Amino acid sequence: MANDFPKHLVAGYGRYLTKGSIRHREAQEQLAIYGQRPDVMVISCCDSRVTPEGVFHAGPGELFVVRNVANLVPPYEETDGQHGTSAALEYAVRVLKVKHIVVMGHAKCGGVHAFRENANAPLATGAFIGRWIKLLEPAAIAMACMPIDRLDDPQLAMEYAGVRQSLKNLATFPFVDTLLRSGELALHGAWFDIGSGELRIMDRVSGKFEPCATDAQILPVAAAE
Amino acid sequence: MANDFPKHLVAGYGRYLTKGSIRHREAQEQLAIYGQRPDVMVISCCDSRVTPEGVFHAGPGELFVVRNVANLVPPYEETDGQHGTSAALEYAVRVLKVKHIVVMGHAKCGGVHAFRENANAPLATGAFIGRWIKLLEPAAIAMACMPIDRLDDPQLAMEYAGVRQSLKNLATFPFVDTLLRSGELALHGAWFDIGSGELRIMDRVSGKFEPCATDAQILPVAAAE
Amino acid sequence: MANDFPKHLVAGYGRYLTKGSIRHREAQEQLAIYGQRPDVMVISCCDSRVTPEGVFHAGPGELFVVRNVANLVPPYEETDGQHGTSAALEYAVRVLKVKHIVVMGHAKCGGVHAFRENANAPLATGAFIGRWIKLLEPAAIAMACMPIDRLDDPQLAMEYAGVRQSLKNLATFPFVDTLLRSGELALHGAWFDIGSGELRIMDRVSGKFEPCATDAQILPVAAAE
Amino acid sequence: MANDFPKHLVAGYGRYLTKGSIRHREAQEQLAIYGQRPDVMVISCCDSRVTPEGVFHAGPGELFVVRNVANLVPPYEETDGQHGTSAALEYAVRVLKVKHIVVMGHAKCGGVHAFRENANAPLATGAFIGRWIKLLEPAAIAMACMPIDRLDDPQLAMEYAGVRQSLKNLATFPFVDTLLRSGELALHGAWFDIGSGELRIMDRVSGKFEPCATDAQILPVAAAE
Repeated sequence: MANDFPKHLVAGYGRYLTKGSIRHREAQEQLAIYGQRPDVMVISCCDSRVTPEGVFHAGPGELFVVRNVANLVPPYEETDGQHGTSAALEYAVRVLKVKHIVVMGHAKCGGVHAFRENANAPLATGAFIGRWIKLLEPAAIAMACMPIDRLDDPQLAMEYAGVRQSLKNLATFPFVDTLLRSGELALHGAWFDIGSGELRIMDRVSGKFEPCATDAQILPVAAAE
Repeated sequence: MANDFPKHLVAGYGRYLTKGSIRHREAQEQLAIYGQRPDVMVISCCDSRVTPEGVFHAGPGELFVVRNVANLVPPYEETDGQHGTSAALEYAVRVLKVKHIVVMGHAKCGGVHAFRENANAPLATGAFIGRWIKLLEPAAIAMACMPIDRLDDPQLAMEYAGVRQSLKNLATFPFVDTLLRSGELALHGAWFDIGSGELRIMDRVSGKFEPCATDAQILPVAAAE
Repeated sequence: MANDFPKHLVAGYGRYLTKGSIRHREAQEQLAIYGQRPDVMVISCCDSRVTPEGVFHAGPGELFVVRNVANLVPPYEETDGQHGTSAALEYAVRVLKVKHIVVMGHAKCGGVHAFRENANAPLATGAFIGRWIKLLEPAAIAMACMPIDRLDDPQLAMEYAGVRQSLKNLATFPFVDTLLRSGELALHGAWFDIGSGELRIMDRVSGKFEPCATDAQILPVAAAE
Repeated sequence: MANDFPKHLVAGYGRYLTKGSIRHREAQEQLAIYGQRPDVMVISCCDSRVTPEGVFHAGPGELFVVRNVANLVPPYEETDGQHGTSAALEYAVRVLKVKHIVVMGHAKCGGVHAFRENANAPLATGAFIGRWIKLLEPAAIAMACMPIDRLDDPQLAMEYAGVRQSLKNLATFPFVDTLLRSGELALHGAWFDIGSGELRIMDRVSGKFEPCATDAQILPVAAAE
């Protein structure tokens, strides 16, 4: 019976209908009729504390979103098997023709933490998690070889390095590389601090992460109450 | 330089800081300090018109979200390679110990449409997309063998069938099966109508999708304006 | 003709006969007759600035020395092919029954530098060099995950990490592991500063490198002239 | 704790600081700053009784030294895996651009002895040693087919043959062959008598080993005392 569907989700859906969806109703109708045309793809983490539509206060139709553990993009490879993230990338770039791809990392990433804790035995974290987070190995190697971040916080440094590696991997896809060269597509790195709500953007020249330049202030918790 | 970061995303982030995050600031601080403990995992589509946190009006920490093309879950397999969705599933079930997994399909799904258009030559849609949506083949076969939905809308029927197949595949993971038997984990099917905002829940006995029972009304577009 | 043998080597050999070998002549005769019985194996770099017998002021018969690029020890593996360093290890431990194995890294290591410069394309350094220094990858990963050294000098940190990894790899050889457990064999990490002549020893508990405790002073260059 | 580091090595390091390093302190500083530029690579044995820097009375920066069991050079091969000696060769020739490569064999070589004792079952000496010294097989065959040395001492004959084979193998590396033809690189064979301290050089035309032509005399043991 459907009535074992979580009560709090039903309640949330009720709030969505009476509040959330109001300002978007017409847009939704239009999007249903004419289809989606997002110009931005966001690759972020499954973490319940990181919601791209929330961070960018985006409405229906604005962001094509992939969410996987630790916001990783595998490098291009032609082997068989299902490559979910690569499929989403192909769909975003070749079918939807997005203009921007944002890889958004975040603080306290459990996937990154699991990798750091089990660097010498990744499968100890679970066969699937382990094989997945091994995608961070090149990031760790690159970071160890020439660290460009303050390394007194290895978790943060690895979160940054993971974003950089995913950006590198994105460029290994022929259909991405072509558009990067023609300037029709741009790749961006970002990092979200789940506690303070601070967003940092990666400088593509220096590779460093800097606070997103906005006039809006991060409200202190007190003020927010 | 970071200043080529999309202007509208910066503006959106500004809105997030001044509006979106206000009611969640303290919760965010707490979540950063104590970690996430979501009890629900949602597997939904990358589609820019479907946002689980939106549909369930959920705040930070409530939903662990995987988003891939056509909200698909591959069956359990022990081959090498990166299985992003399986890794997220393993993390949600074994690390976060979620109590509910919701597979949420939606109307006008481009992945489902691509599969239907290219059923006989899935790779025509792209090598990665094609291999990914082949995961819908068993759904199509099951549907063809015993249609339980009104088939005058094959797109909708396939969207439903895809959700059912993903639920079947979820149960093939040993660590999921164990918890299903002990009643510690429940699987749910849902479908979202991006145009009207209607949410339908799958009845686990009949397999049919029925409107989510809530007192809230779906507002007509006119009223919403 | 032998007379194209480098003149300066012939001259050096002359000095060896009139100076170097004098104090060792009898020991050499004995060693030739009774064979070698070194109790220490040293694994160090090919670098022309690092000579184990020099650093430890050792005479004939004292040190069994392997020298390869970046003083690396591969992990135990049973594949075919020639494993030169593993063969030397086997000979030292099983035939000569050494009691100590010292892995000695050093400053300005070209092999470590080449790895750092080409972390993402190791073969760029040459097919053989590249495959060889890939042995540093686990060291880089371990270091990136939990750095224990001051990382404002990534070259030094990687030199240390390489020594630690080689010590880890040594312990993967069954015939080494057995003797480690029985206390019949001990592994040591060391690092030599080619400029100042300083020797640092790795603390096996903390993994940190500390100056070798000796009463002798490192002479300032002035004084040495 | 580091204080289990062998006492005699600490003492030796003390002697190095107070004696050994004095005449080299400034050279060391310079070598650390400007890097190494050795013009000679020596491939010799791990044997504790054979130290290239000793035999050639060489100071820091003069000799790039590879030491493995029985001073062997494998032939060029493009298989995967780590080829430590080939990597060192590649580094010496392509990066350091050495002008001379000396393969130095020696008397009483345990690796050569192990090969002779176990010619029909090399692995009996240990899996790694066995596979390594099989590199001497072509040397044994060549020697058996056309003996050019007095064979009443098969150990010595095999030591010579091993050096010749390694010289042959060196020439199989494309980057070595090219420089040999252009005259930018020269290969040399040598053999050291650990008992008497006598050095013999191989005549490249006849392939025979002859005493190194130096005015210095080999001192009788008595005189040396």
